[in-house]
Amino acid sequence: MSDSHLPKDMLGRSGLIKVSEAQAKILKRVGTLRPPIESIGLQAALDRVCAHPVRAPEDLPTDNRSTMDGYAVVSADTYGASQSTPAYLEIAGEVQMGVAPTRSIHRGTCLKIPTGGILPAGADAVVMHEHTVEIDGSLIEVVRSVGAGSNVITRGDDIRAGDEAMASGKLLRPQDLGLLAGLGITEVTVFKPITVGIISTGDEVVDYRDPLEPGKIRNINSILLAGACSRLGALVRDYGIVSDRESVFFSTVETAVSETDLVLFSGGSSVGMRDLGTQAIERLGDPGILVHGVSLKPGKPVIIGLTGKTPVFGLPGHPVSAMVCFDLFVLPVVLSISGRSTGGFEQRPVLTATLMRNVNSAAGRLDLVRVRLVEGNEGLAAYPILGKSGAISTLSRAHGYFLIAEDNQGCAAGETIEVHVYQ
Amino acid sequence: MSDSHLPKDMLGRSGLIKVSEAQAKILKRVGTLRPPIESIGLQAALDRVCAHPVRAPEDLPTDNRSTMDGYAVVSADTYGASQSTPAYLEIAGEVQMGVAPTRSIHRGTCLKIPTGGILPAGADAVVMHEHTVEIDGSLIEVVRSVGAGSNVITRGDDIRAGDEAMASGKLLRPQDLGLLAGLGITEVTVFKPITVGIISTGDEVVDYRDPLEPGKIRNINSILLAGACSRLGALVRDYGIVSDRESVFFSTVETAVSETDLVLFSGGSSVGMRDLGTQAIERLGDPGILVHGVSLKPGKPVIIGLTGKTPVFGLPGHPVSAMVCFDLFVLPVVLSISGRSTGGFEQRPVLTATLMRNVNSAAGRLDLVRVRLVEGNEGLAAYPILGKSGAISTLSRAHGYFLIAEDNQGCAAGETIEVHVYQ
Repeated sequence: MSDSHLPKDMLGRSGLIKVSEAQAKILKRVGTLRPPIESIGLQAALDRVCAHPVRAPEDLPTDNRSTMDGYAVVSADTYGASQSTPAYLEIAGEVQMGVAPTRSIHRGTCLKIPTGGILPAGADAVVMHEHTVEIDGSLIEVVRSVGAGSNVITRGDDIRAGDEAMASGKLLRPQDLGLLAGLGITEVTVFKPITVGIISTGDEVVDYRDPLEPGKIRNINSILLAGACSRLGALVRDYGIVSDRESVFFSTVETAVSETDLVLFSGGSSVGMRDLGTQAIERLGDPGILVHGVSLKPGKPVIIGLTGKTPVFGLPGHPVSAMVCFDLFVLPVVLSISGRSTGGFEQRPVLTATLMRNVNSAAGRLDLVRVRLVEGNEGLAAYPILGKSGAISTLSRAHGYFLIAEDNQGCAAGETIEVHVYQ
Repeated sequence: MSDSHLPKDMLGRSGLIKVSEAQAKILKRVGTLRPPIESIGLQAALDRVCAHPVRAPEDLPTDNRSTMDGYAVVSADTYGASQSTPAYLEIAGEVQMGVAPTRSIHRGTCLKIPTGGILPAGADAVVMHEHTVEIDGSLIEVVRSVGAGSNVITRGDDIRAGDEAMASGKLLRPQDLGLLAGLGITEVTVFKPITVGIISTGDEVVDYRDPLEPGKIRNINSILLAGACSRLGALVRDYGIVSDRESVFFSTVETAVSETDLVLFSGGSSVGMRDLGTQAIERLGDPGILVHGVSLKPGKPVIIGLTGKTPVFGLPGHPVSAMVCFDLFVLPVVLSISGRSTGGFEQRPVLTATLMRNVNSAAGRLDLVRVRLVEGNEGLAAYPILGKSGAISTLSRAHGYFLIAEDNQGCAAGETIEVHVYQ
């Protein structure tokens, strides 16, 4: 697909599509891609992605248990009990932790029971220690009535055998591992992590560890993008800095496409570099270029393509623009092809803040404005960081960003904004 | 310090303090603790904590550079230029990427310049390619005027030599590594990760990988707490499941206090276990117990102490209560003693949602209510998950939680709530 059918501006250049359209174009194409699976021990499964639904192999808990320190009772014995008219119950013994009780109880008797103790046969509730007065070692006063099931967690209350304990596509958080451990599940099937190939281009770009000769600039994007990928659970293969001579660049992109699951190249917001990137994606196979520039600031010159099953992103050379395009386009694709179920709320938390300065925006363009947050008496104050898009320090000073939608020509000081926090 | 001076309830038991007081008591004591430092390569520094302020060793960028594809000009040459009255400039050559320009310009001339190209001597602005028309290889029309500095990032615009590039205590995010790389900094001094010792107690608790005998329960808390610590960048030493017999328990806590930076024990919300935990902390040295129960549901029986410089937390045995106490008390302490600067906004993002059911709360107590989120037409709907605190599945099903403050007796369906998202 060439961009010849795209709308042109008055100077004959290709038109731009909205951010949401660009996101939809690539996500629609990669939505069914999933990595290979592997089985791993639960100890190693933190922040991995569950690949198969897991069903509970048994009831949890396996017994009826007390949730309080107190006395296991027949609830009917306590009806009407109060401070002034207590019920009297005979202590028939004690339930030990970790041991199935051998005694049962009947009307008029009770067993002392610790939190977590197994409810004895005959009992249907637990009276909290705080609502009893021990008369002597063999008798208590109960000063409050309890209904059947009070202070008891019954077998299967937590989860029942056969119920889904874990959905496919779920990121395994600490509490998810806790649930699986509670069910005695020791291994879990997860998706293998995807590998992202990262290429920096440009004859002017040098490794940041090398001496800087006049006219050169240090490679910022490789470490920036590698870090952003790592935080999403992806592995990174760094193809280093590649000349923007056609033959070298094309063959590196080709290698990266064959060796990794997603390719990012960056470095070159120049028209020449964009054309080279476009050609590289087109040459490698269908469907080719999906997005060629978006109505976005910063980040307009992003290129998004798909060659076979491998998404390829041409990111702007400026680090700030590259990071913005990463957050808006690469991040959702990495999560999707890593097997993460969509609609994950964990990616979307915001802080509400008051904008402290007017910010203008061109109509028809999504603006992503970086802000610094300051805690004030009236809540959070957000100060826009209006540096140029080449200025990496603006990204380092930012606590997060807010968006000015396409149909909006700016935000006024005093407006309430939602800040997406850089974590 | 014993709890004898604490207020008692009508049955003679110790009173409870507010969550915010409990947090302040421990944070005040550990606020100046910092881990040892080490110097590491930038490639390994993602999500580590910067231990010394880093100053920029040089200006960034090192030269005045174009931020657009276009022509380097003397801005005065373009004043008044428009579509109808263009300015005409002679093309005196081209700036190559990665090479310091050898030509300079003067009034009436310009140099073609790519994005990122170094501004030649004499030029003070760049006219975007889009605002020019090339007449032939040696002449352009400029159809828009530019001011001095337009489309140029000048030397030191991003950060100046000597300015603070990174503050001590800052978590090194991808963009922070990017800034350091841009400055040619290859090593960074960071805090060593802290080690958290985790002890599960209770003769009824068995490893989740072992067969479950009648009356026993599987250890959920160790994997739950280990995962939560790992996510904060801490290392974990697992002391396994320890008998709640006094001698064994005391000696394990003592070992953990000597070998790690922070100790968590859990298992036992019973009064006997709480007493044992309290004694263990008191015995090991001053200042001893700081908090002995808080007005919190779930999580009331939490114990917080400090022995020498080692914080020790006795968490409730129920996994949900343990996790709540972790989030409210352990998390801020781990961040603080890991050297993270306070006021990190990244820990606080929320989602706004509409509560779908009434939730009652006792006055004087902070309630933490787990919720499931559902995307609706009117925004997010939050459904309270009202399982018992022993039910780990409630924590696994939850997308996050909201708080009902001490001075509030509940929240009504339809109210807007702020949901802290489990990430």
